[in-house]
Amino acid sequence: MIRLSVLYPSTEGATFDHDYYRDKHVPLAVKTWGLDGADIDKGVDGPYVAAVHFRFESLDAMGAAMGVPGTMDVLSDVANYTTIAPVMQTSEIVG
Amino acid sequence: MIRLSVLYPSTEGATFDHDYYRDKHVPLAVKTWGLDGADIDKGVDGPYVAAVHFRFESLDAMGAAMGVPGTMDVLSDVANYTTIAPVMQTSEIVG
Repeated sequence: MIRLSVLYPSTEGATFDHDYYRDKHVPLAVKTWGLDGADIDKGVDGPYVAAVHFRFESLDAMGAAMGVPGTMDVLSDVANYTTIAPVMQTSEIVG
Repeated sequence: MIRLSVLYPSTEGATFDHDYYRDKHVPLAVKTWGLDGADIDKGVDGPYVAAVHFRFESLDAMGAAMGVPGTMDVLSDVANYTTIAPVMQTSEIVG
């Protein structure tokens, strides 16, 4: 299993609409990529103001999901909730 | 629910023993803090070489867990698998 974590660093002067993120953006990504769900984080302490963690069966499955046409809509939706450039982390879930 | 993510940035010249981390260190932390388990990541692409995600019922529960005497043993065990200084992120799980 592969985890794709998208982490939004706290950034001076930037905003982040947590409600839109949880209610609109992440559901759009989940639907577009055909996933069962995702884990959504609202930062309390540390370098990140928000994050989401998606799971894919494999790197190939993640690549295939990213390749669907709807991914463009997911990416263009980012402007609706933040100006922060996210950090992307891909990991193998080993335990 | 609270997620505590411990993220190890890729660091020039540093090593990370993934087997020890998965088989010894994280189980020690889970046992010490009385948790059901944890999600362990091995970095594939992105800024982090490894990570773990723990869940706590609340910030108070996390604080209480960190306050047990065994936490010192967990922290002193870090030297057995890496020299990387981890990034700590505490978040509220909102979805």
